[in-house]
Amino acid sequence: MNRIITIGREFGSGGRELARLIAEITGYAYYDREIISEIAKRTSLSEKYIQNVAEHKPVIPFPIHTGRTFWAVIPDYGQDVQKEQHSIIRELAEKSDCVIVGRGADYILRDSNPYRIFVYSDDEAKLKRCRENSSNDYDKGTELTDKELSRRIEQINTSRADYYEFYTGQEWGMKSNYDLCVNTSKCNDFMKLARAVSSIII
Amino acid sequence: MNRIITIGREFGSGGRELARLIAEITGYAYYDREIISEIAKRTSLSEKYIQNVAEHKPVIPFPIHTGRTFWAVIPDYGQDVQKEQHSIIRELAEKSDCVIVGRGADYILRDSNPYRIFVYSDDEAKLKRCRENSSNDYDKGTELTDKELSRRIEQINTSRADYYEFYTGQEWGMKSNYDLCVNTSKCNDFMKLARAVSSIII
Repeated sequence: MNRIITIGREFGSGGRELARLIAEITGYAYYDREIISEIAKRTSLSEKYIQNVAEHKPVIPFPIHTGRTFWAVIPDYGQDVQKEQHSIIRELAEKSDCVIVGRGADYILRDSNPYRIFVYSDDEAKLKRCRENSSNDYDKGTELTDKELSRRIEQINTSRADYYEFYTGQEWGMKSNYDLCVNTSKCNDFMKLARAVSSIII
Repeated sequence: MNRIITIGREFGSGGRELARLIAEITGYAYYDREIISEIAKRTSLSEKYIQNVAEHKPVIPFPIHTGRTFWAVIPDYGQDVQKEQHSIIRELAEKSDCVIVGRGADYILRDSNPYRIFVYSDDEAKLKRCRENSSNDYDKGTELTDKELSRRIEQINTSRADYYEFYTGQEWGMKSNYDLCVNTSKCNDFMKLARAVSSIII
């Protein structure tokens, strides 16, 4: 059976960076947004749409009242995208040793005994990290105040928690669901941390 | 400033073993029950009494009703023991690099920037570990059924949580209070784990 590392991570904690480094050190395949591209190929839906659907729990529709009550009929590919995502994650895990970031992979692959890591940090560290990471999609330059950016970070993490809980029935980030929980708040050497974590696994 | 590692641990998770190995690998001083002996020296109270007082939150006395209401007057050294424990932990941290097990040391030494580890495992792993560890005080041979032993393990951990929360105002084992949370449920090589954890710190 292949060795699988799943990495759940709070937005702003540097979990993705840690995951990449662990993949680099272990020589394992690395999957993150690659999964979205693969779903796009298989479904002919746009990556942007898939990204949205694959990372958010479905919104329960309510009837709209405008004098009369009516329901808008919008095609919903959410279930298809989720099914594809699950299939792809299982296929990737069967293909080779790998590191999979997010997407409830720890739960989807629970029968394959993955090494489950959760990466987190305190609010101040998340804010600092987002400010420093100028390539970050969520922080449009310096146009957001600290308060606004903190709120945005919190929203993204709430959304991740909602998604995880909706599809797994488990609490996101609850330490009993992971083999290792890593707080990066004080970490100033991700390579050192990644080496140490890798040495637990391989 | 000395480097300090604090290790909180669920009873039955192997936290003490991990702590000992980390101290061995890093060459740091190791403090666990040594703290109790030191309090005994300073207070001339028995180690058994100190162990009880130093690891449990105080019991709030209620009046006893036997026709008339009365209060038993029992000398309470709980506060003294706690004060001594805090002083000793601070002294030890000032003396040299060290590993301190339990006793809310992560909180007591919060201004000294300790590396805070929490060690835990699932109930089944805790039970197995307690059964295998025949020298364990809490498992009197095989006289306890699995159910009884599990209940005993849970009681000890509840007592640790109560103690921690009483003296720190923080939730015991909540991952945001630690730098690293290690689940030992699947671990079959504590030395490897200890080496990896040590390499994060030193």
